[in-house]
Amino acid sequence: MTAQEKLLNRINKGLHICVGLDSDINKIPLHLRKEKDAILQFNRNVIDATAVEAAAYKINFAFYENWGTEGFRTLEKTISYIPNDILIIADAKRGDIGNTSQKYAESIFDHFKCDSITLHPYMGSDSVQPFLDYHGKISFILCLTSNPSAHDFEKQKLENGSYLYQEVMNKVNSWNSKNNCGLVFGATNPNELKENIDSFNNMPILLPGVGAQGGSLEEVVQIFLDKNKPNYLVNISRGLIYADDTQNFESVIRKKMKSYNQKIDKILL
Amino acid sequence: MTAQEKLLNRINKGLHICVGLDSDINKIPLHLRKEKDAILQFNRNVIDATAVEAAAYKINFAFYENWGTEGFRTLEKTISYIPNDILIIADAKRGDIGNTSQKYAESIFDHFKCDSITLHPYMGSDSVQPFLDYHGKISFILCLTSNPSAHDFEKQKLENGSYLYQEVMNKVNSWNSKNNCGLVFGATNPNELKENIDSFNNMPILLPGVGAQGGSLEEVVQIFLDKNKPNYLVNISRGLIYADDTQNFESVIRKKMKSYNQKIDKILL
Repeated sequence: MTAQEKLLNRINKGLHICVGLDSDINKIPLHLRKEKDAILQFNRNVIDATAVEAAAYKINFAFYENWGTEGFRTLEKTISYIPNDILIIADAKRGDIGNTSQKYAESIFDHFKCDSITLHPYMGSDSVQPFLDYHGKISFILCLTSNPSAHDFEKQKLENGSYLYQEVMNKVNSWNSKNNCGLVFGATNPNELKENIDSFNNMPILLPGVGAQGGSLEEVVQIFLDKNKPNYLVNISRGLIYADDTQNFESVIRKKMKSYNQKIDKILL
Repeated sequence: MTAQEKLLNRINKGLHICVGLDSDINKIPLHLRKEKDAILQFNRNVIDATAVEAAAYKINFAFYENWGTEGFRTLEKTISYIPNDILIIADAKRGDIGNTSQKYAESIFDHFKCDSITLHPYMGSDSVQPFLDYHGKISFILCLTSNPSAHDFEKQKLENGSYLYQEVMNKVNSWNSKNNCGLVFGATNPNELKENIDSFNNMPILLPGVGAQGGSLEEVVQIFLDKNKPNYLVNISRGLIYADDTQNFESVIRKKMKSYNQKIDKILL
């Protein structure tokens, strides 16, 4: 099943929440922290609690790489635990010259068997091309991010009148001949989202920044509804996976996941 | 020993070649390819052949990550084999929101014990800050890269009259209060190097792109000499580590390393 099919199947069911597995040993329920393979066990519980209602999983590679070899093993086992029909996004934010990007693409798509990746645009088209050569995968390229210092460069105005992030958006559109490009657009920027949504064309949009970073789920869903565009994923990490730190956390996460989807349904239906 | 001290000690000896460990199983000498831990063995041979004359080692993480857990183990063992007094640059090109960059910084500096990292500037200051909080490390931030599509965004002209890469250069200067910032500046851009060298101030410059990508070692060295600036590293990867694919490769690499340094000496002395 291609990444595009996995995404479409879930979106057609009205599912838009991407579950972010930013799993941190200092934040998972206390009783799990001292167990063997604590992060893996936590991830399995989160996946059990959310797999029916999740539109995708986003795995934040940083939270595994900081454990070195052991973290990569947790990553491999977490990925193999996610049901085959759900999109897995490697939130790895890679980007390098061609022959190196080729190796990163092999790592993410061939070794880890993820369906999708997040990429930096800074180095331009040839840094992204090796990922785009995988037709059944989706590359989400950073456009306007959710962090405060997005204004440092992304919101710099170019001589041609557009902002840098808009130049990225336009170039990524031109790279999308195989329908395997997407954009990362921070949910903390609702005004820019409204202003640019028509230029996304048919690309899927990954929206981080809801919850801990201040973005509003309802506002984002309404913006896409107003344009009759269903091709988006709202990522929620900390607000969902750390909803509870007791023995009962799996059931709390399950309820929280349901409540997010009910909020979305209320707007969409 | 801090990263700054390691770098200074080697530069003071007139050493400027950074050895790039982009070690690829399909390119290392034939007789090694089928051995256990082939990449690790190759790296050890390369390090043995170059440690006296190298200014630094740059480890291209992509070439290890594509092996997953096994690659991370090779990475850990390679790093521990490099003599303690030589700068190790994790060429990982990371960059993410604050709490995630914090995890990447822990991975590179605490877990892998590298001295230095390469970073994407796209997401701005808060994406870089967790790395800059490590005072005895060096963060080389991408400025103008060596690949052809650097012109897509890096060479876009801003409304304020400077190019994006110059805006990056200026902002990184302003982030350098702890003397732990550096810039990546492709050796394939000698004209831009000449035009901007005065604005680097005291930041170390990492120059990829010599050899396979077409940059000239002599030209770069001359540009820095003309400005009496010694604080730079010229990376050479493919041109050095794959100089020979016979049983005799270690000795060929040793000679090639010497010949690079002789070329530099001829200009400097």
